[in-house]
Amino acid sequence: MHSSSHPYTGFFIVLEGGEGAGKTTQIGAIATWLEESGWLAKLRSFDINPPLLLTREPGGTPLGQGLRQLLLHSDLEIDPMAELLLYAADRAQHVATSIRPQLQRGGIVLCDRYTASTVAYQGYGRGLDLQIIQQINRIATGGLAADLVLWLDLPVRVGLARTQQRGTADRLEQNAVAFHERVRQGFMALAQVGGDRWQRIEADQSLNQVSKAIQDCLGVRLHQWFETLKACLRQGE
Amino acid sequence: MHSSSHPYTGFFIVLEGGEGAGKTTQIGAIATWLEESGWLAKLRSFDINPPLLLTREPGGTPLGQGLRQLLLHSDLEIDPMAELLLYAADRAQHVATSIRPQLQRGGIVLCDRYTASTVAYQGYGRGLDLQIIQQINRIATGGLAADLVLWLDLPVRVGLARTQQRGTADRLEQNAVAFHERVRQGFMALAQVGGDRWQRIEADQSLNQVSKAIQDCLGVRLHQWFETLKACLRQGE
Repeated sequence: MHSSSHPYTGFFIVLEGGEGAGKTTQIGAIATWLEESGWLAKLRSFDINPPLLLTREPGGTPLGQGLRQLLLHSDLEIDPMAELLLYAADRAQHVATSIRPQLQRGGIVLCDRYTASTVAYQGYGRGLDLQIIQQINRIATGGLAADLVLWLDLPVRVGLARTQQRGTADRLEQNAVAFHERVRQGFMALAQVGGDRWQRIEADQSLNQVSKAIQDCLGVRLHQWFETLKACLRQGE
Repeated sequence: MHSSSHPYTGFFIVLEGGEGAGKTTQIGAIATWLEESGWLAKLRSFDINPPLLLTREPGGTPLGQGLRQLLLHSDLEIDPMAELLLYAADRAQHVATSIRPQLQRGGIVLCDRYTASTVAYQGYGRGLDLQIIQQINRIATGGLAADLVLWLDLPVRVGLARTQQRGTADRLEQNAVAFHERVRQGFMALAQVGGDRWQRIEADQSLNQVSKAIQDCLGVRLHQWFETLKACLRQGE
């Protein structure tokens, strides 16, 4: 059995949230937990390699790293629509060359930001047309949606205070509190229509408490998914 | 009267065509002719500065130059949809920061390739969905179309033979003759629905004959446009 020809699909987890929500820390914690709790070993035992793809947007591919440089760290004045299309190009490359192949081989994808960030930041935050954003997201992803979005939510001022302590200030973080309030409204609107696929995680707690909340949610969902995967694997034998 | 607040619009000329059609040479010839025949002096006398913007896609802006590097000269395997979105980002930036401001001040824009190249190369050439391409073109341009498309048309094998003599071979030129035949079909299809906005120029002639054909067409069209511009200028006084 060659892992590249698995006919079943993996599990696609996305972390979303505003500045200072702790996404990077929690993504590391999730990866550790997936290993220590035995999930990755289970997948390896079914010849799924790598069992986990840890990635992010923008910048999840070599092309994306060049674009990330342009988007976050250059002095160029970038037109908002051009920026939207650059994020979309990064996403199309990321889905085609990384995310979709990993899901096709039955593995887990854990991604720092995805389509919801574009809706929240460019749509709600900057006021670009939401219909255009949805069109572009659909084109860039070919319709591929996350199986589970973990939204790390906390009050804007708490998050911004955290990033200021960290001393970083990229293009996004220089914007005003009002901008980030609109971004949060965007995530909230998506969560309201996201049904089972969205899980709001209260992020204004200790790191351990946030990790625990994520693990509780993830444990249940991975278990459900894994039963389906095993059924597919048995059929494929 | 400040040129930045002109309420009238300029004239937007696009040169299109396959490999080896002579676009670069003819664009230079057009610029020289516009100067020598007095068109640019006329515009300067109405405070339109610069009277002519000479530009190209991809790569008409600093952002675009970085993208052009990625698109034409890098070794990265770029997903076709990601490529389409990168061209679109370049176009959005180009329209917003260069083309639209020049047209708003009443000047002439002369651009090497525009939306039709995306339809012909990515759509007809590579087989991407034409509806998606049109959606993305509309989003990137905000609906801004050329006033006149000069399509330099010649048989594919003649054009490719010219580029081989020139010794250049970027990503596009490495493709097969069949690809360029499809591209030509794409330009032909656009010309058939383009009405007055499209002018096919027989490019399998001497440079001087091609220049002459372009000038004959351009002289008539610029004259019509200039009458409208003058009427607007009189109203604006």
